Amino acid sequence: MVVTRWVDLRSDTVTKPTEAMRAAMAKAEVDDDVLGFDPTALKLEKEMAKITGKEAALFVPSGTMGNLISVLTHCDVRGSEVILGHNSHIHIYENGGISTIGGVHPRTVLNNKDGTMDINLIEAAIRDPAFEICYPTTKLICLENSHCNAGGRCISVDYIDKVGELAKKHGLKLHIDGARIFNASTALGIPVDRLVQAADSVSICLSKGLGAPVGSVIVGSKSFIAKAKILRKTLGGGMRQIGVLCAAALVALQDNVGKLEDDHKKAKTLAEGLDRINGLKLDVAAVETNIVYLDILESSNLNAPKLCKALERHGILVMEDKPYRVRFALHHQISAADVQFTLSCIQQVVNEASDENGASP
Amino acid sequence: MVVTRWVDLRSDTVTKPTEAMRAAMAKAEVDDDVLGFDPTALKLEKEMAKITGKEAALFVPSGTMGNLISVLTHCDVRGSEVILGHNSHIHIYENGGISTIGGVHPRTVLNNKDGTMDINLIEAAIRDPAFEICYPTTKLICLENSHCNAGGRCISVDYIDKVGELAKKHGLKLHIDGARIFNASTALGIPVDRLVQAADSVSICLSKGLGAPVGSVIVGSKSFIAKAKILRKTLGGGMRQIGVLCAAALVALQDNVGKLEDDHKKAKTLAEGLDRINGLKLDVAAVETNIVYLDILESSNLNAPKLCKALERHGILVMEDKPYRVRFALHHQISAADVQFTLSCIQQVVNEASDENGASP
Amino acid sequence: MVVTRWVDLRSDTVTKPTEAMRAAMAKAEVDDDVLGFDPTALKLEKEMAKITGKEAALFVPSGTMGNLISVLTHCDVRGSEVILGHNSHIHIYENGGISTIGGVHPRTVLNNKDGTMDINLIEAAIRDPAFEICYPTTKLICLENSHCNAGGRCISVDYIDKVGELAKKHGLKLHIDGARIFNASTALGIPVDRLVQAADSVSICLSKGLGAPVGSVIVGSKSFIAKAKILRKTLGGGMRQIGVLCAAALVALQDNVGKLEDDHKKAKTLAEGLDRINGLKLDVAAVETNIVYLDILESSNLNAPKLCKALERHGILVMEDKPYRVRFALHHQISAADVQFTLSCIQQVVNEASDENGASP
Amino acid sequence: MVVTRWVDLRSDTVTKPTEAMRAAMAKAEVDDDVLGFDPTALKLEKEMAKITGKEAALFVPSGTMGNLISVLTHCDVRGSEVILGHNSHIHIYENGGISTIGGVHPRTVLNNKDGTMDINLIEAAIRDPAFEICYPTTKLICLENSHCNAGGRCISVDYIDKVGELAKKHGLKLHIDGARIFNASTALGIPVDRLVQAADSVSICLSKGLGAPVGSVIVGSKSFIAKAKILRKTLGGGMRQIGVLCAAALVALQDNVGKLEDDHKKAKTLAEGLDRINGLKLDVAAVETNIVYLDILESSNLNAPKLCKALERHGILVMEDKPYRVRFALHHQISAADVQFTLSCIQQVVNEASDENGASP
Repeated sequence: MVVTRWVDLRSDTVTKPTEAMRAAMAKAEVDDDVLGFDPTALKLEKEMAKITGKEAALFVPSGTMGNLISVLTHCDVRGSEVILGHNSHIHIYENGGISTIGGVHPRTVLNNKDGTMDINLIEAAIRDPAFEICYPTTKLICLENSHCNAGGRCISVDYIDKVGELAKKHGLKLHIDGARIFNASTALGIPVDRLVQAADSVSICLSKGLGAPVGSVIVGSKSFIAKAKILRKTLGGGMRQIGVLCAAALVALQDNVGKLEDDHKKAKTLAEGLDRINGLKLDVAAVETNIVYLDILESSNLNAPKLCKALERHGILVMEDKPYRVRFALHHQISAADVQFTLSCIQQVVNEASDENGASP
Repeated sequence: MVVTRWVDLRSDTVTKPTEAMRAAMAKAEVDDDVLGFDPTALKLEKEMAKITGKEAALFVPSGTMGNLISVLTHCDVRGSEVILGHNSHIHIYENGGISTIGGVHPRTVLNNKDGTMDINLIEAAIRDPAFEICYPTTKLICLENSHCNAGGRCISVDYIDKVGELAKKHGLKLHIDGARIFNASTALGIPVDRLVQAADSVSICLSKGLGAPVGSVIVGSKSFIAKAKILRKTLGGGMRQIGVLCAAALVALQDNVGKLEDDHKKAKTLAEGLDRINGLKLDVAAVETNIVYLDILESSNLNAPKLCKALERHGILVMEDKPYRVRFALHHQISAADVQFTLSCIQQVVNEASDENGASP
Repeated sequence: MVVTRWVDLRSDTVTKPTEAMRAAMAKAEVDDDVLGFDPTALKLEKEMAKITGKEAALFVPSGTMGNLISVLTHCDVRGSEVILGHNSHIHIYENGGISTIGGVHPRTVLNNKDGTMDINLIEAAIRDPAFEICYPTTKLICLENSHCNAGGRCISVDYIDKVGELAKKHGLKLHIDGARIFNASTALGIPVDRLVQAADSVSICLSKGLGAPVGSVIVGSKSFIAKAKILRKTLGGGMRQIGVLCAAALVALQDNVGKLEDDHKKAKTLAEGLDRINGLKLDVAAVETNIVYLDILESSNLNAPKLCKALERHGILVMEDKPYRVRFALHHQISAADVQFTLSCIQQVVNEASDENGASP
Repeated sequence: MVVTRWVDLRSDTVTKPTEAMRAAMAKAEVDDDVLGFDPTALKLEKEMAKITGKEAALFVPSGTMGNLISVLTHCDVRGSEVILGHNSHIHIYENGGISTIGGVHPRTVLNNKDGTMDINLIEAAIRDPAFEICYPTTKLICLENSHCNAGGRCISVDYIDKVGELAKKHGLKLHIDGARIFNASTALGIPVDRLVQAADSVSICLSKGLGAPVGSVIVGSKSFIAKAKILRKTLGGGMRQIGVLCAAALVALQDNVGKLEDDHKKAKTLAEGLDRINGLKLDVAAVETNIVYLDILESSNLNAPKLCKALERHGILVMEDKPYRVRFALHHQISAADVQFTLSCIQQVVNEASDENGASP
C-alpha cells in the first residue's frame, strides 16, 4: 500500500507552519533578542502578557524549558521542594530536569482522573517549617491545565482559585503548566487571564495546538520574568533574531485560537466513533479537549504496537502510550474527513485482527 | 512537680553510651582514618561486612549520610532516578538531600501500611529506556526495614528477595535503608545477612537501638564502598581518629543486639496498655518492633502538643508526629517499670482532660 | 542629530537574516524535530558533520547551550572536573552554568594573550587519580578558537593537536568552543575538519559571523551526540519545526563562509585606523579575525561609557568591555564605508574630548 | 631494620587523643545533639564562639564539611560564585564539592607565595551586576589562614581587614578557612577573635594541631549558624551523642593551644637542619608555623617517593606532595629528639643516594 496522504495524530506538536506564518517569518522585523532589542519578540511578549493578565512575558525555546525555568526561578534557594501531580508532565516527561539539573526536590500528590489533586492532600504535603531541620522547604505548587496524562481534561477556574488561596495562605507560589491553556480556556469557556488569575507563573506552548513552528512563553510578574531571563541564558535558551519565530507565533495567536473549539469537536467525534468499535474501550465523557486516549482490550487480539504499525500502513500516525493504550491528538491540520478515514481504518484493522484470531486453530 | 527521673521515649537515638562503651572509647586503639589506618574502624567495618554478608563496609557519621552516599553512589550519572516509598525516611526526613545535594530525581510509589510497596507498582514505575529522550534513567530501588513511618513494621525476606529479582531483571540496584535492620532481623527471626542478601547496599545505624553514641555503617561490594569512601570525603564525612567511636560501636554490637527482643516486648506492653485507655487509638498488631504510634481521638479533649506537654511535667518525653499523633520509641535504657510509669501517667493525663471537658459549661 | 543609518558593531550576533535566508525559511520543509523527523534539520546536521569531519551533529538554540551540553555530556559522572582557560567564554560569560546547573568543577589555567594555555600548565592541572580521595576527576580539556577574550585570536592546528595528544595520553576528552571556528579556519587557512581533528566535540555558532538568525551546532561521535540529544531535551532545547531555522543556517553556510575573509580585512582596516588616533591604544598585529579590542588612554579625557554614548549619537553601536576598553565586531553587514565612517566619527569624538579637556581650567 | 618507634610527620591530623582527652570522653555528659540538647556540644560551641568573637558556633565532623557548609550557606541561591585562591585547600583538596555537590561556581585568583591574593585582583574578579545576564553572581570571598599550600604561611590581620572592607563595599561575605587559625594566631601574636574580626564565618579544625580526635567548628552570626545547622543535617553531619567528641575537643583547647608555639620552633629547627643538607632546598624564612615543604634537587639522585620509602624504613613517615617535594607537619606528639632523629636519618639517606650515584658506572 502506497501512502498518498498522511494523517499525523501523534501529537499536536506536529503541525506545520501555515502559509501566513511563513509569510510573516519572511518579513519579520528582527534584532538581537539576547541584547533585548528584537521588536517582534517584544511584541509577542507584550501580547502574551496581555492575554494572560500578567505583568511580563518571556519567549523560550520549548515548554520543557518554560516549566524548568519557572520551577527553578520560584525554587531559587538550595533545599526547595515543589508539590506536583504524580503523573504531571513535569514529573513524568521532562527528564526529571527540575532535580537533575535544578536540584529541586519533588513531592508528588496523587492526580485524580480529572487532573486535579485533592486540596487537602496538597495541604498535607506542605512541609511544616517547624521541622526545617529535616524537611526541605516547600516553595511551589504546580498545576497542569489541560492535563496531558488525564487525557487533556481541564481543571476549573474555581479549583485553581482554591489552590491559589492555599498557596497564598502558606506563602507559596503557584505555577501552571499551561502547555495547552488555550485548549482549557476554550473548553471551559473562561478567558485565559481569568483562568490563570491565581497563578504566579504560567508556561504556555505556541507550538502545540496553536501551530507555531517553535516556542513557548512564560508569564508572571516583572521581577519573576527578570530572573527567568537570566536563567534562560544560563540554560542556553537565549537566542538571537527570534523575531522570525515570534512572527509566526503572533500569526498562530491571531488565526488558530479560534480553531481549537473545532479540534475539540473532532476529538469528540473520533472518541465516539472509537467507542462504537468492539475490542476498544474509551471514556467518551472524559474527552474534553483535543486529546483522546484509547484502551485496547486484550480480547481484540491487538495491542498498541500492533495497532500503530497497522495504522501506519494506512498513513495514519498515532502514539503508543502503554502496551495497550494509544493516544490521538487532534489539531487544526486534521480535517473532519481525516477523522472519518481514521475511524474506518481502525475498524478495518480491528476486523482483520479479529479474523486472524478466529482463523487461528 | 520536680522531675527526678526522665523517661525519654522520643527516639531510640537518645540512648547514652554505657560504661562499657565509655571504657572502650577510653582505651581504643586509633589512627588517622582519612589516611585509612584506624585499626578500630577497620575492625568495626570488617565485623559489619561479616554480619551483613557483604564484601566491605564503611563507617559514616549518620544514617542520613549513609543513605545519601548510597543513593548517590548508585546514581552517579546525571539524569538518574530512584524509586522509593512515598513515606520512606529518605523521602520525608532527609531534607530532600538526594535531589537538593545530589541531583537525583525521586519517583515515589505508594507505601502500604506495612511498609511495602506493591511490586507491580514498582515495576510500573521503572522507566522504559525506549523513551530516554524524555525520561530520567531508573537506576535504583530503595526499601526501608524496619519502616519508620509504617510504625516500625518489618518487611519480609521473601518480599525483599522478590524486589531484588525485579531489580536484577531490569539492571537496577537495590538499596535498603536499614537504620533499624537489627530490629527487623530480631522481629522476623532472620539473620541480617539473609535478610539483606538481595541488596546491593545497606545503611545501618549503630546509634539508634544499638545504643552507640555516634555513627552508621554502609555495606556493599568492594567497588561500591571504594566509591562511597570518596563521596564520604566530598560530603565532609571523612573523620580522623574515629576509633574512639568505633570502639563504642563494637561494644554496642556485642552487648545490645540481644536486648532488642526485650525492647520489642516493652513496646508491645506499652501498646496494649495504651489501647486500653479511652480516647486513644492504636493498632496493637502493627507494633512489630520498638516503635509505637498512638492516635489521639478528638473526643479525648487532648491533642499531640497537649499530651506531650502534660507528660513532660511527669518527666516523660515523647515525640509529636502529627496534630493528633505521637510516637514512642523503646530502647535498652527504658525499663519495664518505665513503661508502667508511662502508662499510669498517660491514664492520669487522659482522666484530667476528660474531667476538664466535663467541667466545661 | 537624527540617525539615518545604524552601524552595529556590538557583536557579530546582531546580523539580520538576508533575503535568501528569509526565502529559504518561507519554503523550508519541516517536521517535528523532537520526534527526530525534521528533514531540514537532518540535512543541516549532516552537512555540519561533514564540514567538521565528525560522525554526527546536533542543532541547539545557542552557543551557550552547545558548550553546556558538551561539557556536561563529557562530565556525566558526579565529581568531574574540566580544565579550561581563565578567561575563556565558558568560564566568564556563560553564567557559570557548568557548575550552577551541571555541578562540574572548573579548574582554570592561565590564558596567554594569544588564547592558548601553556601545555605544561594544562598537564600540571590534570588530577592524579592516586589522590582521588580528595581530588575531583579530570574528565575534559576545553579550548576556544577563535578566542573571544583574546581579541579573536586563533590557536594553531599544531597547538590543538598537541593538546589532543595530551588529552589522549591521560584518557581525557577535548572540547573546542568553536563559536567562531569558521573565522579561525579562514584566518589560519586550515579547513575546519583538519582544525578540529583532535577534538572529541566542537560547538559552532551559526548566528555569529555566518549570519543565521538563530542556532548553533555541536558535533562529535555518534554516541556523544546521542547523549547530547537527551540533555538538550532536559535543558529545554528540544524544539519542533526547526527546519525553518536550519534552512536559514544552510544558506548561511552556503553564502557567508566566504565573506569571513573580508570581515577580517575590514577589522584590520579599522584597527589600523584606530591605532593612528591619539589617545587610543591597540595591538594591530593581534587583530587576526573579526574582533577589535580598543584601549582608551586616560589622557584622552574619554572612557568606555563616554565613547559608546558619543558614538551612539552618530548611529554607531559598540560594546563596552571594561571601563577603558571597547569591543568592535565586524560582520558581513558592515561595509568598507561603514568602517571609514566609524573611524571618522571616532576621530571627531576624540578631538572633541581633547578640546573639552583643553578648555577646562 | 625493625622500627621500634614511629615519627609520624605526614600531617598534624595524625595526633592521637591524650590520656586527658580519653578521660574526658569517658565521663562526658551527653545527649542527642540532633535534637539540640547535648550539653558538652553546647559548651564547646559556646567556648568557640567566645574565642572567635562570633555570635554562634556549630560542631561539624570535619574541616571539609566546615568549609562546604560555610560556602553553601553564603551561596544559597542558584547562580552564585565564590572567589578563592587558585591553590587554596577548598579548591584543590576538597573534591570540588562546592561545585559537584553545591553547584557553586568558583572563580580563582592567583595565590601569592605567602598565601595572599592581590586585593586589586580580587576586586577585578568581582562580577559587575550590570552584566547579570551572562555572569554568575559573586557572593563570597574565601581566605585561608594559615595557608596550607603556601607552606603554612600566615596572612596578616591588616590584609584580612582590607579584604573584609572590600567584601563589605561590594555586599559580599568573607569566609576564612581557618583549619589552622590557632597556628596563625600563635605565629602572628594576634588573638583569634581579632584575627577573624572581618570574617562572616570561619571554619576551624580541632583535630589538626590541637590534637582532638575528631571534629571542626564553624562560627558566625546566629542566623548563619541556624542555616548551617540545617545544611549539616542535609549532608549527614548531624550526629547524636557528640559530647564524647566535644569533651576531647575542650581538653584540646585547654591543653594544646599553648603548645603550638613549640611546634613552630620545632618546624624551624627541622627546616634549618634540612637547609644545611646538600641536595635539598628550602626557604627557611617561609616556615612560619608547623609545616615544612622540602624540595629535592634532581642532583641528589633522590625524589619524593624514594625519600619517603627510605625514611619509612627508619620509622619516619612524611607526605609526598609532588614528584620532587615532600611535606613535614609538626605537632605536639613530635619531640625535639624526634626532629634531630629525622634530620640525621635524612642526612644518612642523602649520603647513601649520593654514594650510589658515585658508584654507578
